[in-house]
Amino acid sequence: MFLTRSEYDRGVNTFSPEGRLFQVEYAIEAIKLGSTTIGISTKEGVVLAVEKRVQSPLLEASSIEKIMEIDRHLGCAMSGLIADARTMIDHARVTSQNHAFTYDERIKVESVTQAVCDLALRFGESVHDEDAMMSRPFGVALLIAGVDEKGPQLFHTDPSGTFVRYEAKAVGSGSEAAQSELQDKWHKQMTLKEAHILTLRVLKQVMEEKLDQHNVQLAQVTPDKGFEILDEVRLKALIDDM
Amino acid sequence: MFLTRSEYDRGVNTFSPEGRLFQVEYAIEAIKLGSTTIGISTKEGVVLAVEKRVQSPLLEASSIEKIMEIDRHLGCAMSGLIADARTMIDHARVTSQNHAFTYDERIKVESVTQAVCDLALRFGESVHDEDAMMSRPFGVALLIAGVDEKGPQLFHTDPSGTFVRYEAKAVGSGSEAAQSELQDKWHKQMTLKEAHILTLRVLKQVMEEKLDQHNVQLAQVTPDKGFEILDEVRLKALIDDM
Amino acid sequence: MFLTRSEYDRGVNTFSPEGRLFQVEYAIEAIKLGSTTIGISTKEGVVLAVEKRVQSPLLEASSIEKIMEIDRHLGCAMSGLIADARTMIDHARVTSQNHAFTYDERIKVESVTQAVCDLALRFGESVHDEDAMMSRPFGVALLIAGVDEKGPQLFHTDPSGTFVRYEAKAVGSGSEAAQSELQDKWHKQMTLKEAHILTLRVLKQVMEEKLDQHNVQLAQVTPDKGFEILDEVRLKALIDDM
Amino acid sequence: MFLTRSEYDRGVNTFSPEGRLFQVEYAIEAIKLGSTTIGISTKEGVVLAVEKRVQSPLLEASSIEKIMEIDRHLGCAMSGLIADARTMIDHARVTSQNHAFTYDERIKVESVTQAVCDLALRFGESVHDEDAMMSRPFGVALLIAGVDEKGPQLFHTDPSGTFVRYEAKAVGSGSEAAQSELQDKWHKQMTLKEAHILTLRVLKQVMEEKLDQHNVQLAQVTPDKGFEILDEVRLKALIDDM
Amino acid sequence: MFLTRSEYDRGVNTFSPEGRLFQVEYAIEAIKLGSTTIGISTKEGVVLAVEKRVQSPLLEASSIEKIMEIDRHLGCAMSGLIADARTMIDHARVTSQNHAFTYDERIKVESVTQAVCDLALRFGESVHDEDAMMSRPFGVALLIAGVDEKGPQLFHTDPSGTFVRYEAKAVGSGSEAAQSELQDKWHKQMTLKEAHILTLRVLKQVMEEKLDQHNVQLAQVTPDKGFEILDEVRLKALIDDM
Amino acid sequence: MFLTRSEYDRGVNTFSPEGRLFQVEYAIEAIKLGSTTIGISTKEGVVLAVEKRVQSPLLEASSIEKIMEIDRHLGCAMSGLIADARTMIDHARVTSQNHAFTYDERIKVESVTQAVCDLALRFGESVHDEDAMMSRPFGVALLIAGVDEKGPQLFHTDPSGTFVRYEAKAVGSGSEAAQSELQDKWHKQMTLKEAHILTLRVLKQVMEEKLDQHNVQLAQVTPDKGFEILDEVRLKALIDDM
Amino acid sequence: MFLTRSEYDRGVNTFSPEGRLFQVEYAIEAIKLGSTTIGISTKEGVVLAVEKRVQSPLLEASSIEKIMEIDRHLGCAMSGLIADARTMIDHARVTSQNHAFTYDERIKVESVTQAVCDLALRFGESVHDEDAMMSRPFGVALLIAGVDEKGPQLFHTDPSGTFVRYEAKAVGSGSEAAQSELQDKWHKQMTLKEAHILTLRVLKQVMEEKLDQHNVQLAQVTPDKGFEILDEVRLKALIDDM
Repeated sequence: MFLTRSEYDRGVNTFSPEGRLFQVEYAIEAIKLGSTTIGISTKEGVVLAVEKRVQSPLLEASSIEKIMEIDRHLGCAMSGLIADARTMIDHARVTSQNHAFTYDERIKVESVTQAVCDLALRFGESVHDEDAMMSRPFGVALLIAGVDEKGPQLFHTDPSGTFVRYEAKAVGSGSEAAQSELQDKWHKQMTLKEAHILTLRVLKQVMEEKLDQHNVQLAQVTPDKGFEILDEVRLKALIDDM
Repeated sequence: MFLTRSEYDRGVNTFSPEGRLFQVEYAIEAIKLGSTTIGISTKEGVVLAVEKRVQSPLLEASSIEKIMEIDRHLGCAMSGLIADARTMIDHARVTSQNHAFTYDERIKVESVTQAVCDLALRFGESVHDEDAMMSRPFGVALLIAGVDEKGPQLFHTDPSGTFVRYEAKAVGSGSEAAQSELQDKWHKQMTLKEAHILTLRVLKQVMEEKLDQHNVQLAQVTPDKGFEILDEVRLKALIDDM
Repeated sequence: MFLTRSEYDRGVNTFSPEGRLFQVEYAIEAIKLGSTTIGISTKEGVVLAVEKRVQSPLLEASSIEKIMEIDRHLGCAMSGLIADARTMIDHARVTSQNHAFTYDERIKVESVTQAVCDLALRFGESVHDEDAMMSRPFGVALLIAGVDEKGPQLFHTDPSGTFVRYEAKAVGSGSEAAQSELQDKWHKQMTLKEAHILTLRVLKQVMEEKLDQHNVQLAQVTPDKGFEILDEVRLKALIDDM
Repeated sequence: MFLTRSEYDRGVNTFSPEGRLFQVEYAIEAIKLGSTTIGISTKEGVVLAVEKRVQSPLLEASSIEKIMEIDRHLGCAMSGLIADARTMIDHARVTSQNHAFTYDERIKVESVTQAVCDLALRFGESVHDEDAMMSRPFGVALLIAGVDEKGPQLFHTDPSGTFVRYEAKAVGSGSEAAQSELQDKWHKQMTLKEAHILTLRVLKQVMEEKLDQHNVQLAQVTPDKGFEILDEVRLKALIDDM
Repeated sequence: MFLTRSEYDRGVNTFSPEGRLFQVEYAIEAIKLGSTTIGISTKEGVVLAVEKRVQSPLLEASSIEKIMEIDRHLGCAMSGLIADARTMIDHARVTSQNHAFTYDERIKVESVTQAVCDLALRFGESVHDEDAMMSRPFGVALLIAGVDEKGPQLFHTDPSGTFVRYEAKAVGSGSEAAQSELQDKWHKQMTLKEAHILTLRVLKQVMEEKLDQHNVQLAQVTPDKGFEILDEVRLKALIDDM
Repeated sequence: MFLTRSEYDRGVNTFSPEGRLFQVEYAIEAIKLGSTTIGISTKEGVVLAVEKRVQSPLLEASSIEKIMEIDRHLGCAMSGLIADARTMIDHARVTSQNHAFTYDERIKVESVTQAVCDLALRFGESVHDEDAMMSRPFGVALLIAGVDEKGPQLFHTDPSGTFVRYEAKAVGSGSEAAQSELQDKWHKQMTLKEAHILTLRVLKQVMEEKLDQHNVQLAQVTPDKGFEILDEVRLKALIDDM
Repeated sequence: MFLTRSEYDRGVNTFSPEGRLFQVEYAIEAIKLGSTTIGISTKEGVVLAVEKRVQSPLLEASSIEKIMEIDRHLGCAMSGLIADARTMIDHARVTSQNHAFTYDERIKVESVTQAVCDLALRFGESVHDEDAMMSRPFGVALLIAGVDEKGPQLFHTDPSGTFVRYEAKAVGSGSEAAQSELQDKWHKQMTLKEAHILTLRVLKQVMEEKLDQHNVQLAQVTPDKGFEILDEVRLKALIDDM
């Protein structure tokens, strides 16, 4: 009576008889091919960490940017198609600047996350406005970290345009093992330092290569200093502590 | 003589030989995959309730928003694709604000419902105006609750752009059992308090997890106070009452 | 030599080798799935009647609107996809208002019918103007009733954009039996009262549920009072009379 | 080596290997499904006649308009899809009015025919101007009758945008028999009266129902009185004469 | 390895593996279905001749126009789809008028031919300008005859947008036999009269019907009198001479 | 695992799994069906030569233009679809005139070649600007000859938009044999006269017909006289010399 | 359950069930068909080298440009479809000029690389702005070399719009062997001279033809002199040194 599942999965914006949107689900698969990315929220601030896949010793590891600043109080880590993420983060930056300029206040973490998700939803054949030029779903998941009047917060977005807040979240190829480890170890009283150590430990478990200061990247967003990417010295110190 | 049903179901806006629009019917299936959502109308006001699916203990349950304010006197609960619902509710909010600004009066519950349904109808390949950028039907059902000169009212919308008024309505994965329970228990003289208790009882029956103040959300629209989402304290009190 | 019929029926605007437009014929099928709708023209005025399918006791029957006012002297009953009908009736209303504003006279019943049918014809891929945004035929039949200088008149429109005038006409799922009954009973000298009773009798025969004042709707257009929907009191009186 | 014929026939504007345009040929088939329409040109004027298919005794035969005025000196009878014909005749009327307004003279019969045929040619996917919004060929044949400085004339148009002048021409389902009858009976010295009788005789032969003043329509274009539709009294007199 | 030829032939503007454009080739086939058309160039002027297919004795042969004036010094005979030819000749007329208006001189025969061929090339899906609204190749061949400073000239255009000059050329269903006859009989010293007789003789050989003044059309372009269509009297005289 | 080659070759702008663009490769095949075209660069100037295929003795060979002037110092010979070439050469002419007008200097040979190749690249579905209205690759190869401050130069362009400079180059159906002959005979010290004789000799070898002044065309671009097409007298003298 | 891989690979912007974008991957294959291109970064500057495939002795090797200047301090070597690369480099040049004009400073190497990658991402059906007119991914890899305040840098871009920085990188048909050779031989203390010799040695190993000054091209970007293409004299000297 029905076609097999496979016949519906190429329409970029078509429902299957069970009410599923396969292209969005396949875009989520694209994220599972990406490197592991972790975010942990504490009372003192939010920690973001990514694995870098340094495929060649001649590759300049520092040029792989998977954690980026959105605004002074907002950062973002990504897993999936990097080029797609750049478009989304550009949108987040412009949204944040516009907000600051218009209202003379920092945008809320949830608001900037919602702006990114609204962009994610706007793909397909009938979209003609300039902002949303994707003809397929974005193949990327973002962990958006920030601090606002509600304190430090961590949001997760996926290709369907859905976002939710997490205390701690892992995405990418090693996410399953990483998430269950986070569930075991995370607790409400965690310090920022403990969160740094925890992200490194979880990454260590799921990475094939030996973790060192070159193949991981760490960042934090704190109420005082806002968004910072840790330099290799601080990173090495943390790895040694671990 | 005819193609089998399966050949018609991928055209987003094509009739089958029996006169059916399969993509709209499949979008309705998308709603059956969603979490259970309930609305009850009483003389004292309307109650909205949703189940939250908290898939991980690290997920911040309060960030799952499935009940949203449209205007001071209007609220909305959703089941299905959350990102689709955001677009519809944004449309409802703008429509409501425009009405208030132009006519200096609150929009009627039925009028705002019709505006949302007109948007739902406008999808497909020939649609080029800015408001309606979907190239497929919206995969979401809304329960719109509000109070106007006709008193408290509850409307239900589906992806075909059809709306009708209900005394009590359940949508989502547990809707069949929930609706028959509502049919048994609802009566004209119900107080708002009784409606709160009834929604919680019905949700309890259809939810797999144990119901507590974290995995359900309750809201009400009353003539006096308009739209309110119940905070966890009031929610816990209600659950204890039950 | 030829493809089977089934190969032509998905092109929204393609002729089959026999010169048929299947998508339009399938849209006509959509109407046969709809509830039964009846119109009767008499010297004293026109009567419109629809069956309401009240699928749940919690559904507010009065919110199912299948008879709508177009203008003071014009009304319309529909069968088929309700959301499609709304678009057509909006077009009819605007056309009627424009006519009144421009010429300072009431639009003719035939003129407003033709405007609706012109809209029905304008679907398909090459249509880009704002009014006609359908990418498929409208899946609805209308019975347009009105009074103008030519007296009371009843028109029937179908998805092909064709319209003709009838003395009495039934559309929807029970239309075959209803039409033959109308043919037997209708006569030139009928009073408005007799027409009301006749529509109720015909609906009663074709409805599965027991007819009462909640699951049918009656309206009339008369030279004196124009378009009126009968309230439940008058409706109940008529049912009792019957 | 070649695909069978059937593979080419769905492309609305694609040549088959033999150089044929099937969609245009199928549109011509749509006309063969239509009711029979006849035109006869005499020195005294042109006669147009159509069969009306009155499918129900409750149908108001006078509302089936298959002969329409284009201008004071121009009329038109149609066979095929009525809604398509309306678009073409609207175009003819505007063209005729524009001509009269710009040049202060009546448009020639051939010129208005050519304007209609130019519209017929302009369909398909690349057409974006407002006038020609058809995405398929027009499924209608017109017999355009008129009087200008060259005297009474009768033109025939088909969906390919081709037109030729005829002394007498039949189109629609009974056209084959009707045309051979016209060939036998038509002669140069025919009076208008004889032409009226001849069209009625030919229609009588090809119609399934018994011909009376309700199920046929007659019109004439004469140098003196221009376009006139014969009322039922004159029609009945002619039928009695016959 | 390759698809069979048939798979490439429906793409209106797609190369086959051998580098062929089948839709253009099929449009050339459409011409072979057309009536026979002949052009002969002499020192005294150019002669154009066409066969008219008078399918019915009631058809007014004079309304079949297959030879048309482009300008005072330019004429054109066609074979293939007449409606397509009208669009091309309209373009030629406008081009010629524009040239005369801008430069105050008669356009060259080659220039007007090139303008027509540039139009022929501009079809397909990406064409959006108003002039070229064809979504398929033009199914017509033109013989363009004219006189300019280079003397009398005859050009032939085909659906690929290619044009070359001929001394004598036949197109249409009888073109093969006609062209070989022209090759035998044509000589440089031919008078206009001899060219007239030759075209009639060649047409007579390839026509199924008996040639008379009603079913052929003759025209000439001479330095003195420009473009002239021969009236039936002159035509009859020539046929009698023959 | 993969589709066979044939499945990719109809997408006008789609990569095959091996990274090939078949429509571009098939357009290159279209050139191999064309007549043979040769260019030779010498210190004294550049020579261009084409074979004309005179299919009928009645065809005016001089009307086959396969060598065209771009500007005073620039010429062009083509092989493949002539109508496509006209569009490219028009673009080259406009580019050259614009350059002369803007900078008051002659455009460089390489610059005009690049402008033509940029046009060649801009085809496909997303192209909407007026200049580039092709929905498929151009099926033509050009040999662009010119003289600028760098001296005489010969460039070759193909449908992929690639261009390189050659000392001597043959394209079209006889190109393989011709190119190897050019490779044997070409030397740096060649005079213009020797180049003329060489092109004629090579053409003679690859042509099926006997070469004479009617079925070949020769042109040269020299520093002194710029672009010149050799008239039949000079051509006959060269053939006699050969 | 799933389609085989081959069914997804023709959609230019469609995810496969594993989350892959095949058209982008096939574009990467197009690069592997290209000639070998190498870049080496040293403290003294960056070296770029390409193999030229001189298919005919009559081809002017100097006209094959695979290394191009972007700005005074920026150069670029390419492998893959040359015509595609021209579009990207034009975009890079304009971006660089705009930056210099707006901010009165040289653009950073990373910024210009990102601008090129943003262009690469913007292809597909929904793209309508003028800059990005590709309907498929760009089939080209670029090695962008430059010097800015961070010193000499080498970036690699691919069709997915991803870029990373390398110390030394090889692309094209011989890239695998070349990259492993670079990995063995490259060291931090390399002089520019040693880098020149190393690129030549690696090219020599992977080229089928004997390497000489005609079939390779070398360029360098240094802090002092910016971008320079080495002339044949310097190139010959380096080859002799090697």
